Amino acid sequence: MSELRSRASADDARFMAMALKLALRGKGRTRPNPLVGCVLVRQGRVIGTGFHRKPGTPHAEVVAIESAREDVRGSTLYVNLEPCAHYGRTPPCLDLILERQIGRVVVGTVDPNPLVNGRSIRALRAKGVDVTLGVLEAACRRMNEVFFKWVQTGKPFVTLKAGVSLDGKIAAFTGRSKWITSEVSRRRAHRLRSEVDAILVGIGTVLQDNPLLTCRGIRIASQPLRVVLDSALRIPLDAAVLGPEAESLVATTDRAPAEKVAALRARGVQVEVFSPDRAGRVPLGDLLRRLGEREIQHVLVEGGRGIFTTVLEEGEGDRLLLFVAPILLGGEEAPGVLGGRGAESPQEALRVFDLRCRRSGQDLLLECRLKSSESEESLTACPVDSKEPG
Amino acid sequence: MSELRSRASADDARFMAMALKLALRGKGRTRPNPLVGCVLVRQGRVIGTGFHRKPGTPHAEVVAIESAREDVRGSTLYVNLEPCAHYGRTPPCLDLILERQIGRVVVGTVDPNPLVNGRSIRALRAKGVDVTLGVLEAACRRMNEVFFKWVQTGKPFVTLKAGVSLDGKIAAFTGRSKWITSEVSRRRAHRLRSEVDAILVGIGTVLQDNPLLTCRGIRIASQPLRVVLDSALRIPLDAAVLGPEAESLVATTDRAPAEKVAALRARGVQVEVFSPDRAGRVPLGDLLRRLGEREIQHVLVEGGRGIFTTVLEEGEGDRLLLFVAPILLGGEEAPGVLGGRGAESPQEALRVFDLRCRRSGQDLLLECRLKSSESEESLTACPVDSKEPG
Repeated sequence: MSELRSRASADDARFMAMALKLALRGKGRTRPNPLVGCVLVRQGRVIGTGFHRKPGTPHAEVVAIESAREDVRGSTLYVNLEPCAHYGRTPPCLDLILERQIGRVVVGTVDPNPLVNGRSIRALRAKGVDVTLGVLEAACRRMNEVFFKWVQTGKPFVTLKAGVSLDGKIAAFTGRSKWITSEVSRRRAHRLRSEVDAILVGIGTVLQDNPLLTCRGIRIASQPLRVVLDSALRIPLDAAVLGPEAESLVATTDRAPAEKVAALRARGVQVEVFSPDRAGRVPLGDLLRRLGEREIQHVLVEGGRGIFTTVLEEGEGDRLLLFVAPILLGGEEAPGVLGGRGAESPQEALRVFDLRCRRSGQDLLLECRLKSSESEESLTACPVDSKEPG
Repeated sequence: MSELRSRASADDARFMAMALKLALRGKGRTRPNPLVGCVLVRQGRVIGTGFHRKPGTPHAEVVAIESAREDVRGSTLYVNLEPCAHYGRTPPCLDLILERQIGRVVVGTVDPNPLVNGRSIRALRAKGVDVTLGVLEAACRRMNEVFFKWVQTGKPFVTLKAGVSLDGKIAAFTGRSKWITSEVSRRRAHRLRSEVDAILVGIGTVLQDNPLLTCRGIRIASQPLRVVLDSALRIPLDAAVLGPEAESLVATTDRAPAEKVAALRARGVQVEVFSPDRAGRVPLGDLLRRLGEREIQHVLVEGGRGIFTTVLEEGEGDRLLLFVAPILLGGEEAPGVLGGRGAESPQEALRVFDLRCRRSGQDLLLECRLKSSESEESLTACPVDSKEPG
């Protein structure tokens, strides 16, 4: 790997950055496909560019190659994600690259899709194509982290979002939480909703706040699916979250009264019944897998405390966003962002990674990852290099 | 005021910044005096500089004037704080400025010391000296905020400091808090101790953690006074905080057993007995006033939750520092930074001001003010301008 990296030049980074920028132009429209951008270069000159626009349209590599007005033989192709090797909705990019005799391929990161996963890179090398892997790798992985999680695990990427006071409370002791954060943060939270496929809340939040859970003030093609975790099916039939503004799904257990299941379904609400876990609750992992099967790649968990705690305890969270408001709520009984028993000491606490802070109106936005990026490292390290040393 | 400000030029800001930089050279050694720097300028050239080194030595203005190798008549004097008008350990700077016929005086901020408080500015103007007030005023006020608080109220400036997990806990449910924050943050906390005159903790913290409360790993002239708030005098005679490394003061009420008071005093521990407040506790305001009388200008409150809550409820806090560690402790029973009843809603919560964030090793350091800087605004606005319009 180190030998491969050393061959990457400053030019390689520059053209890969260009590919990443192109990839971003597909943002929000490529799902279930990843964001991919491609730049074709000959002797330091860009001779073709492309990005993936949406499912069913040509891949970035194809667009870039077709866009070239001159012979592409011997040129270098930059792409943030390993080219595909399989027949999907379009033929494999691998074949086109070989057919057009591209001389060198620079790849940001391996495609962890089990159908690819280093296969294209090995195939290109076997045919004598020079392949450099891992240019701007962290940025390339980060750009498609949602897709990667989903394609590797079958479960959506899970973002937890909460608004807290500076002293870590998500509500006053009375339960009142409107509004802890500033309008700027609340608008940002709506933008966040527009970027996910589903919003997940616990029944406690529905009973306490009766939220609508739609994405407002932003133009979007379709509203995210609203999912309520409700083991005993306590949800009122007139809950705002069940309204016609967006699809709703209630995840419950076989403890749910059959008539209520029927009544909800009669209103067009989707009800998924799970065998309860040991604690009598909807098994979170099963629910996430079920959502993944529906091509839901990104779930936003908006609370309350119970579901945050479960998600973290079961290791299902990927990212945490905390909007921290410039207020002190106080109150021994006021709920914090997490409940449960908790860790016995700081050493046994859950570590978070890549903690960052930025402004969000009057608030601060703290963001972190819940899984170490070292574990992601294995993605590119294993499938290609262990089999193709040097 | 606005008219006065409009006369301040970019050069004025530049020379005031120089005065501030000079003032900082006295940091940590001028108490109970403020930090003051002075620059003497003629036709855009600096002809003299000075700063206040320590109590009993000449004021910055005197040093600057005496340092000039040429005639100072008609020159402009820049000073971050209004010159003194009273006889203290040294004669008033006001007289020297008039005697040497300085042509113009540019002042950062009024000296809120009741003995000055705009008097010098009015006197200079009455004698025909051109005075510009308010150049880099916010920075000038911030530099001496500790002194200003003390001189205006007789109470020390109060900084609250806590280390918390990302979910806002100061300890695990077991009470264990070693170590939530990183070594970098703990070193920074020791530096913070070196900058204050006293460290204040509640008896709960002493019983739970048995801290030494000294400033370690940093060279300092003398250790800050260690103060324990202990209404019922529960402190063990062998508590680390009572050791010989630094002075100790225990603040208690008349509920304290007389023999224990005597035993503590016999060991060289200072014991201050207060009439309890309605809740039976040491009245915080009285304690702070008592500390102020001892020329303690800056108190660092290090916890626990009870004392943080009291300080905030009684409006005695000035600044809050939260070291936020990249861990999630969880636990419904794990203590947050504040207890008590708390606010009923976000609208009734205590607002904080000037919330900022920076890195501290692996942690983030969130800093805010507990009083609005608008209330400080009145400092310079009132005493001079209401009486001397234009």
